[in-house]
Amino acid sequence: MGSSVKRLAVLGSTGSIGQQTLEVVRALPHRFHIVGLAAGKNIDLLAKQINEFKPSFVYCQDKEAPTCLPDGDYQLLSLEDIACHPQVDTVVIATSGKSGLVPTLAAIKAGKKICLANKESLVMAGEIITNEAKLNAAQILPIDSEHSAIWQCLEGETQSVAQLILTASGGPFHSYSSTQLSKVTVKQTLKHPSWQMSKKITIDSATLMNKGLEIIEAHWLFNIPFDNIRVLIHPQSIVHSMVEFIDGSTKAQLSYPDMRLPIQYALSYPERLANRQLPKLDWSRINRLTFEQPDFNTFPCLKLAIEAGRKGGTYPAVLCAADEVAVELFLSQRIRFIDIARLVESALEEHQAVARPTLEEILAADAWARRKVMQLVTGDSP
Amino acid sequence: MGSSVKRLAVLGSTGSIGQQTLEVVRALPHRFHIVGLAAGKNIDLLAKQINEFKPSFVYCQDKEAPTCLPDGDYQLLSLEDIACHPQVDTVVIATSGKSGLVPTLAAIKAGKKICLANKESLVMAGEIITNEAKLNAAQILPIDSEHSAIWQCLEGETQSVAQLILTASGGPFHSYSSTQLSKVTVKQTLKHPSWQMSKKITIDSATLMNKGLEIIEAHWLFNIPFDNIRVLIHPQSIVHSMVEFIDGSTKAQLSYPDMRLPIQYALSYPERLANRQLPKLDWSRINRLTFEQPDFNTFPCLKLAIEAGRKGGTYPAVLCAADEVAVELFLSQRIRFIDIARLVESALEEHQAVARPTLEEILAADAWARRKVMQLVTGDSP
Repeated sequence: MGSSVKRLAVLGSTGSIGQQTLEVVRALPHRFHIVGLAAGKNIDLLAKQINEFKPSFVYCQDKEAPTCLPDGDYQLLSLEDIACHPQVDTVVIATSGKSGLVPTLAAIKAGKKICLANKESLVMAGEIITNEAKLNAAQILPIDSEHSAIWQCLEGETQSVAQLILTASGGPFHSYSSTQLSKVTVKQTLKHPSWQMSKKITIDSATLMNKGLEIIEAHWLFNIPFDNIRVLIHPQSIVHSMVEFIDGSTKAQLSYPDMRLPIQYALSYPERLANRQLPKLDWSRINRLTFEQPDFNTFPCLKLAIEAGRKGGTYPAVLCAADEVAVELFLSQRIRFIDIARLVESALEEHQAVARPTLEEILAADAWARRKVMQLVTGDSP
Repeated sequence: MGSSVKRLAVLGSTGSIGQQTLEVVRALPHRFHIVGLAAGKNIDLLAKQINEFKPSFVYCQDKEAPTCLPDGDYQLLSLEDIACHPQVDTVVIATSGKSGLVPTLAAIKAGKKICLANKESLVMAGEIITNEAKLNAAQILPIDSEHSAIWQCLEGETQSVAQLILTASGGPFHSYSSTQLSKVTVKQTLKHPSWQMSKKITIDSATLMNKGLEIIEAHWLFNIPFDNIRVLIHPQSIVHSMVEFIDGSTKAQLSYPDMRLPIQYALSYPERLANRQLPKLDWSRINRLTFEQPDFNTFPCLKLAIEAGRKGGTYPAVLCAADEVAVELFLSQRIRFIDIARLVESALEEHQAVARPTLEEILAADAWARRKVMQLVTGDSP
């Protein structure tokens, strides 16, 4: 194996980002080698991935895994042990929710290159993660399309950013009124106009909570004040984000909405690699790109997220956890679409925040917010 | 004067780009100092510029200049002597037509940093200029908005370009038919929808010859084959050009159409400087950006330029010279708008080209083409 082959551990290999990461590896087998795979409960898919990529280390959350997974020359290890293993140089964090937090910190402390798709880690513990990354000289490379776009626009630029402009498709309801929103169904909400994503992110895109979480993520990744991060609705999802510089020049990154591109860019950085499977923009078909200001009143989650980000402390952890529970309740049809924002707002209002929290305090705030949202819905005391 | 102050010579200081260069210097007096000014025949404006900027060296093409210019502590020198003077570190070439060629080469041989607004130099003598720049370690920094956009998009990127996409406003006639074009007047042609420019460039924008010249310029500046340079009509002139990379990612540079931005970028490179006079994009007013394929049949100058660029040798010099004479004939109402392309085409067809020409051969082809176009119009033998 040549020295230019990167040795990857993919945490969350059976999810949407995990599977697309493996597609990139499959297309560029001479550049990437899978050393570790970690999954939640999709044993069948993990088994197929083990047979195809022959990793050295495997983790599966499901207790049945040891008996169900195929035979092979691999060791079953914990998430953290895979993330820190000396045979791994790049860790793709593609798990969802707070489960990415502990292995991300473990990989950072081991000085790994981190390709981060899990936004909750940075939202919940941005200060801890970025400080640890500095201390351990670990690179955090974003996989989100917006943050990849900003990162690409910043390449070669130094210290001259005026503002970041995160684009948002606006989701399936971007021109809806509050009244219309009160009636939308789960099925309608899951039909995203431009991106294929997990259910959680698809709902978060429809509420604009996803964009709010991305603002917090961008704040930590690029060390930019909240006042200098804006959101622009761009329904075609071709301009993935923009950076305005102090001289008035703006750079944008464009491509069709396909997560394999930001995944590959993070994996191959600082190189770009040709990959025939990645679509190129066809300007004979792209006639117009449109832009609108976001509607903060109809989509209150965006404002809630920005406020939680500005206040800092344990507020962003409460934002994340309350949203996660509320989205699950909406998906199981126990609450309406517009109740997601109301529940998150109530949780934030009732939260007794801790400034500069430890990891334990962050996890405690997360647990409190989950209980709080359930209590608000069921009417039980906590 | 601190070491961070750049000492500029502005060749063509009374033209459109020259005046805007001085506006940038006026806005950032602690960063730029005018050492040399050179102008054609606008003695009055040059006199004002001398009084304001107090250059050490002055050139004026007008023979009356020595008696008409104000008293002051400056020397009258030749264009080349100003371009090469040891007190100058950056030379802005803002002259029009072939007059930029000789001083550009002189500045390159003196190892100066060249901020190049004059496109004819690179179109006529791209191979000579780029070879000399390599030999003398002289940087050529583009001032054209399209080339500045590409340069900005390439910053920090290495060896991974798939194609350059030059945007074109399309000029005032971008949806016209050939029949409509046969009737357009000089006055209509001079009304450019988005840019304020010299008459020559405004006419060249309407014929799309300007974009053709820019393709040849881009070929030499960025060492990209003609097959990998495309043109896209973008009437709003906000996306100034784009670069597509081998992984399918595209970067674009955006700003309002204002030449002071690319001028300042070239002057301040590798820094970006805040300048309150430069407008920032207002996304509450930009609702859509539109794109169309260019119409090569209705606007044959674009095709003629690409063909001349591909064939190389003395063809691009003939293209430039024939176009310059044809545009003058159109401005003086001696030919129709559509005759510009016909005259350029005839000159190219009748030209006996020289491969890998010397500077003298290039200038001879230029002179031949000028005579040829006049002969085609007057019917006289050459």
